[in-house]
Amino acid sequence: MPQQTGPRVRAENLKSFCVQVFQKMDIPEEDARITADVLVAADLRGVDSHGVARLRRYVNGLRDGIMRPHPNAQVVTETPATALVDARAGLGQPVAYRAMERAIQKALDVGAGFVTVRNSNHFGIAGYYAMMALELNCIGISMTNAFPLVVPTFGRDAIVGTNPIAVAAPAGQERPFVLDMATSTVPRGKLEVYNRLGKPLPEGWATDETGTPTTDTAQVLENFKRQAGGGLLPLGGAGESHGGHKGYGLALMVDILSAVLSGAAYANLTYPKAPDGKPLPSAIGHFFGAWRVDAFRPVNEFKAAMDDLQRRLRDATKAEGQTRIYIHGEKEYEEAERRSRDGIPLNPIVAADLRAIGEELGVAYEELG
Amino acid sequence: MPQQTGPRVRAENLKSFCVQVFQKMDIPEEDARITADVLVAADLRGVDSHGVARLRRYVNGLRDGIMRPHPNAQVVTETPATALVDARAGLGQPVAYRAMERAIQKALDVGAGFVTVRNSNHFGIAGYYAMMALELNCIGISMTNAFPLVVPTFGRDAIVGTNPIAVAAPAGQERPFVLDMATSTVPRGKLEVYNRLGKPLPEGWATDETGTPTTDTAQVLENFKRQAGGGLLPLGGAGESHGGHKGYGLALMVDILSAVLSGAAYANLTYPKAPDGKPLPSAIGHFFGAWRVDAFRPVNEFKAAMDDLQRRLRDATKAEGQTRIYIHGEKEYEEAERRSRDGIPLNPIVAADLRAIGEELGVAYEELG
Repeated sequence: MPQQTGPRVRAENLKSFCVQVFQKMDIPEEDARITADVLVAADLRGVDSHGVARLRRYVNGLRDGIMRPHPNAQVVTETPATALVDARAGLGQPVAYRAMERAIQKALDVGAGFVTVRNSNHFGIAGYYAMMALELNCIGISMTNAFPLVVPTFGRDAIVGTNPIAVAAPAGQERPFVLDMATSTVPRGKLEVYNRLGKPLPEGWATDETGTPTTDTAQVLENFKRQAGGGLLPLGGAGESHGGHKGYGLALMVDILSAVLSGAAYANLTYPKAPDGKPLPSAIGHFFGAWRVDAFRPVNEFKAAMDDLQRRLRDATKAEGQTRIYIHGEKEYEEAERRSRDGIPLNPIVAADLRAIGEELGVAYEELG
Repeated sequence: MPQQTGPRVRAENLKSFCVQVFQKMDIPEEDARITADVLVAADLRGVDSHGVARLRRYVNGLRDGIMRPHPNAQVVTETPATALVDARAGLGQPVAYRAMERAIQKALDVGAGFVTVRNSNHFGIAGYYAMMALELNCIGISMTNAFPLVVPTFGRDAIVGTNPIAVAAPAGQERPFVLDMATSTVPRGKLEVYNRLGKPLPEGWATDETGTPTTDTAQVLENFKRQAGGGLLPLGGAGESHGGHKGYGLALMVDILSAVLSGAAYANLTYPKAPDGKPLPSAIGHFFGAWRVDAFRPVNEFKAAMDDLQRRLRDATKAEGQTRIYIHGEKEYEEAERRSRDGIPLNPIVAADLRAIGEELGVAYEELG
């Protein structure tokens, strides 16, 4: 993660600021609290691209009417283990939070529960929802499709999103396992970091407008803007030699479970535009699920094995020159501890943007020294 | 896939041969039929490494008593949407087949169903079980953990298996989507092909005994034999720059869902040995699941969207120098059509081995010219 050099803010202050901003945008208080909590959770965990850096987009989306403050989300179909929810173009976070709650309740009732959501918006970090399962001794899973930025294997144009998969499983003495990964090699934000530093891209991250792998950072970002072709490569890179078709397949799996199964917009239908070029509601889809651990085996046995699995990995011999083998989620838990204690370092551009939003809406923006 | 140059056999003949071999090894007829069908399905689909090439290992496993012909597999726990089955060291295929049947029945009953299996053996291709969901208009998922061959990111030794994930979703006019992928960059069989050809490995496939990426094919295979360290790299390759930690995370996810959740042996506990060095029953775990499509949305709507998704990808502009964008499963369906028509080309070593097994057990082995 790139070092941030801007001001530091307390998580609680940032959250309270976001709640007030959302309320000024006519979001009901509970929805505002949920959305703020998901955003600031990203900043705490060090996933800066998915935190308050996106507040401007939400404010604009609500202002432009492509996100609705009172969507009246509805359960369309329901069975003991499944449900489909229509988000009706509301903010992604509140509908996602409640869909995951419903999936967990079903897991508590019948062993496993799955809820898909259609006609939704960006929901923040996928890991947040998977992690909601942990305190109820469930394994959680969460996916979403997203704006098309990734080229399919042998294709020229971006047709699938970075379509993330998150899975969280509880442990005993050790921290929970939390996998939260885009199915592309890297997210778009990583290219922006390289661009700011004027660095060429490593081979295998992106392709140019002919679909050929490239190291030209600025060109790839320019092509995104102009929709000129090319894009991010799926996990595994270009072609099939290093498994790029697997990353592409995982992205399709996410598209199918999140969007085709729910009736949301999939692939490059995801973020439609009106004939006059103005954006329409994004209509993306999410997928949430939970398995109750003790529907399979006693929780204490499961947790003891999770601890042992982690210790086995952590204590294993390291590759030459390496000092640590990580478990997924570990870095983010450590970062969240640091940032809870020391404050969240904000990118100066993001900080300025938050201050501007505060001034526009008449919400006080507080900073720590 | 490497071109096979040996004799060709008809799928039905190969299947009938395997059924008789298994029956000679005291496997009940129905179990023998299931196991033969799963093996020959791999050969039909072009996944030669997982087909009858493994028959010798099953025969030896049964002979040595580490696979039991009459295991009396038992349901340990059950809820409306879940079950745990103890395979009691029987062949992987029959218990996997019935576990998937049970998961599908639960999906038909309550919308979704998940069955984990513990104390099992190699079950063949993961895709076979996921595909069982298709004809009942369900989406299927199947995973298994496996012998440790893959090094965790920054680690020196193989601790996780190639832990495959398979997902199958029905379509309308188009073929079903069938993703069936190891979570390593390549499977071990690919290294064996390179070794036979005397070719160096591409960078990013494997590491040497210090955990450093290597292109020395023979050395990696030798290190496997001697358990000297190193192994296959997870999808995404070495380190984190190209997402190797994501492939490693997916492998752990499979280990957790298949083995930690079921009470099977996970990580490098998977294939234990007795104090005298003799192998013990493998005790691996599987994970099966199904979602009933119309628990979410009408089947015809889902299938129409699956068709459209596939056409959108297939008809998209190709990268420079490329002529085709594939959908997952497409290559295997085409290969199965070819091989059903023309016979299955057997590797000469495999053919000789089958003939030897036939002679040992008194089963006639028939070949097509």
